Amino acid sequence: MYGKDMETIKKENMNLADKIYIFDTTLRDGEQAPGVALTVDEKIQIAQSLDKLGVDKIEAGFPASSKGEIESCRKIHNLVDCTTVGLARTVFKDIDAVLDADLDYMHTFIGTSPLHRDYKLKMSKEKIIETAINAVEYGKDHGLTIEFSAEDATRTEGDFLFDVYRSVVDAGADFLNVPDTVGVLTPIVTKQLITDLKNEFTTPISVHFHNDFGLATANTLTAIECGANQAHVTVNGIGERTGNSALEEIVVALHAAYGIDLDIDTTQLYNISDSVSRITGIKKPVNKPIVGDNAFAHESGIHVHGILNNALTYEPISPELVGHSRRIIIGKHTGANALKSKLDEFNIDLNEEQFDNVFSQIKALGDKGKTITDSDLKSLAINEISSAKETPIVLKGLGLLSGAIVSSTATVKLEIYGEEKETSATGVGPVDAALNAIRSLIQDTLDVELEEYNVEAITGGTDALAEVFVISSDSEGNKSTGRSTNEDIVMASILAVLDSINKLLLLQRVNQ
Amino acid sequence: MYGKDMETIKKENMNLADKIYIFDTTLRDGEQAPGVALTVDEKIQIAQSLDKLGVDKIEAGFPASSKGEIESCRKIHNLVDCTTVGLARTVFKDIDAVLDADLDYMHTFIGTSPLHRDYKLKMSKEKIIETAINAVEYGKDHGLTIEFSAEDATRTEGDFLFDVYRSVVDAGADFLNVPDTVGVLTPIVTKQLITDLKNEFTTPISVHFHNDFGLATANTLTAIECGANQAHVTVNGIGERTGNSALEEIVVALHAAYGIDLDIDTTQLYNISDSVSRITGIKKPVNKPIVGDNAFAHESGIHVHGILNNALTYEPISPELVGHSRRIIIGKHTGANALKSKLDEFNIDLNEEQFDNVFSQIKALGDKGKTITDSDLKSLAINEISSAKETPIVLKGLGLLSGAIVSSTATVKLEIYGEEKETSATGVGPVDAALNAIRSLIQDTLDVELEEYNVEAITGGTDALAEVFVISSDSEGNKSTGRSTNEDIVMASILAVLDSINKLLLLQRVNQ
Repeated sequence: MYGKDMETIKKENMNLADKIYIFDTTLRDGEQAPGVALTVDEKIQIAQSLDKLGVDKIEAGFPASSKGEIESCRKIHNLVDCTTVGLARTVFKDIDAVLDADLDYMHTFIGTSPLHRDYKLKMSKEKIIETAINAVEYGKDHGLTIEFSAEDATRTEGDFLFDVYRSVVDAGADFLNVPDTVGVLTPIVTKQLITDLKNEFTTPISVHFHNDFGLATANTLTAIECGANQAHVTVNGIGERTGNSALEEIVVALHAAYGIDLDIDTTQLYNISDSVSRITGIKKPVNKPIVGDNAFAHESGIHVHGILNNALTYEPISPELVGHSRRIIIGKHTGANALKSKLDEFNIDLNEEQFDNVFSQIKALGDKGKTITDSDLKSLAINEISSAKETPIVLKGLGLLSGAIVSSTATVKLEIYGEEKETSATGVGPVDAALNAIRSLIQDTLDVELEEYNVEAITGGTDALAEVFVISSDSEGNKSTGRSTNEDIVMASILAVLDSINKLLLLQRVNQ
Repeated sequence: MYGKDMETIKKENMNLADKIYIFDTTLRDGEQAPGVALTVDEKIQIAQSLDKLGVDKIEAGFPASSKGEIESCRKIHNLVDCTTVGLARTVFKDIDAVLDADLDYMHTFIGTSPLHRDYKLKMSKEKIIETAINAVEYGKDHGLTIEFSAEDATRTEGDFLFDVYRSVVDAGADFLNVPDTVGVLTPIVTKQLITDLKNEFTTPISVHFHNDFGLATANTLTAIECGANQAHVTVNGIGERTGNSALEEIVVALHAAYGIDLDIDTTQLYNISDSVSRITGIKKPVNKPIVGDNAFAHESGIHVHGILNNALTYEPISPELVGHSRRIIIGKHTGANALKSKLDEFNIDLNEEQFDNVFSQIKALGDKGKTITDSDLKSLAINEISSAKETPIVLKGLGLLSGAIVSSTATVKLEIYGEEKETSATGVGPVDAALNAIRSLIQDTLDVELEEYNVEAITGGTDALAEVFVISSDSEGNKSTGRSTNEDIVMASILAVLDSINKLLLLQRVNQ
């Protein structure tokens, strides 16, 4: 027993099903997330991406909830290759709605725990079993494949739960699903529960685990490890309350931590996560496993040093596996190693004093929590070696006129390499007008594109500081960031754009 | 074996240590998260909150990294009651820095996996063991309590890992920490590994697990279940890449899923999570377990129906346990039950047609992904019963002048209950100026406060749509939301504020 290898431990504990089905419920449980509402077109777009990704089943909705839902389930069913599932309570009208949507796979559920029996359904144990049997029989009579869920299974008395499953199996259920409705399951209990179910039933076992204590992914993986045939997942783990187990975590952990490969194109995971985040409005945190902005980002000296030697020292998988990319962040914790390697990459040679100056400027920016792009670093370095520390373009004057009758109009005066120039322009609002004027003034100096214009969400009063962050690029493909913080969002926007343009100009002069 | 209760399974698998230590590393591993940089004052503020919460140990930083870090570690050590820990590589100068900071507990580490030996450290197995022993002996000679980490333990050969731990125990190490440096551990492997370590060593076992596959919390809980004496955690799970196991998840899951109570004041968890999120700039996702906005939010008809009967039907714990609160969201998935109960609560009686109209307006707003506050619902309902469907205040004209010489100036013309009024005002920017003018025009009509002014982050060009969301309140304490989307951020702000004011006026007229 002394010091067994992790790989050996894994293999000894694995008891896999022959085929593992991925059942995606982004469009049903995911859409039930508070504040999320998807249009039919958005649902179709997500369904088609999931189909292309390679999931086995898509729960497209809850047809009984509205005519529109029946319609969108039918449309999705007609457009995708994978199985389309409709949700139904164990009542005939819900099952009829699944049939109305032309689906042939139903996921039906009834609460089985004491809490659900006594407070929600007000039914005895016998009545629960009778209702479940009737629904399964009705569905089978109409030719449906049936997945049965004992809602709140994990707070149900063990013997009653197994009685319910036995009854629906006898009535013809094709899949037994185990919902951990409020997320109270733990991995070790999951192992025992799934092992017991697999010993008792030949009907395939499915799991649907919620994330209230952050355990949905772990419980789902453990269930698969112990023989579960199917996992319910959602993109980004969205769903009721804190959500479900995340599609991308399950697929990648199965591949990388368990050595189990599904028929899923993992390289699409980052993109699908991004698009679901955008469509649902539920933002991914930067530290989201697999798909978060920081999943493959490194800043601290020790880690960057390791990554530069061999990325696997501080990464469990390569970002390319999931369509993501690695970022070395230059910031407060950056070590001299990382900075040296970046400068070498750019062929910029600094003496010791210049290097120390750049390093301390980075630390100072980092202390304000700022990230620094490659071009920012280049212009910091170039500014250090160039004799005159200059600012090519300076704002000398600004006038804005806007309202409800004519277009917003801006007059901007700039000093460009010492020469004053002035022009006016219109736009859809004052910011747009001012930037149109700037573009027109500098067109002979620099061919610049505004690649990104971001206003950090402003919270507070109308006099709170607005922080504007822009990325500009020139015709050579150089990119630079610009930032400005001001009580006036128009002024902040103009100064941020000028900041990024100045960095590009510095860069260009040295490159020439 | 047929249908065992989950509680029975849990008890049969539990092998707890007598005392479980919570070791918080928000200020060390948390601060290493890309883009995070904390000032000394911010570090002290977080340390004091953690101390008050009741954690056993705080890793305050990595003293060798800078003079400022030594200073902040020393200050924290002097201000808190719990143990203050300093990080050090297994090199004497790092250990000296821990001593310089006046700390008496050191966490020292060296990589042990083949990847770390060959690519980062370029040391043989023998050299690793020798270096580790020297560091532990040096620390012990200087009176330090020593926690030793075998970095990347979970990708280290099992027999070598145990050899390393055996060597440092012989050299005097007081705690053996097991870092899952790139988050590849799984719960079942954790169970075996911790069980083996507990069988081999009497020295207390600590775990430090990363979240690359979303398993940090599950692995940490499993370790504790199998006898680990200590868990490394961070607030909100922040840390390198996708972070560490989350303090709030560990503490609450231990209480609610395992029945293990630590000496932690759980009611402070929501607040501390909020403040760390604000200070570090790493936003909590809405679906974050325990502390996310949606952790106790319910919208779908079936769930709200259950919650109204007994909240435990769809919640694993009460939100009060963690200082959070429950929200019933009115939106697309709202059932008639939830709406009826809300209207009853407000003593608003609608006939069937009026009810249906309000219900469909809510569904329509929900279809656009909008949430609806209690006051919004009241004004929808009141607008339905009031004979004339009117808009009390209408924008009739707007002129804005701003620039760099005088303050931004706005002239606003409003029609208030049919009467036109006009005035001008100045402000720090055009938005502020326009809202000052509006405030001045309506001051006789309504005593209104702008409670929140939020601009959704704008991404795209300067002509992208800006979405403004405001909350206003009147002197009676009524609150209403206002929203507007426009290419011009100034116009969007004005229309959003008027939207919320109109809702308050409708409400006020009916209440009179």
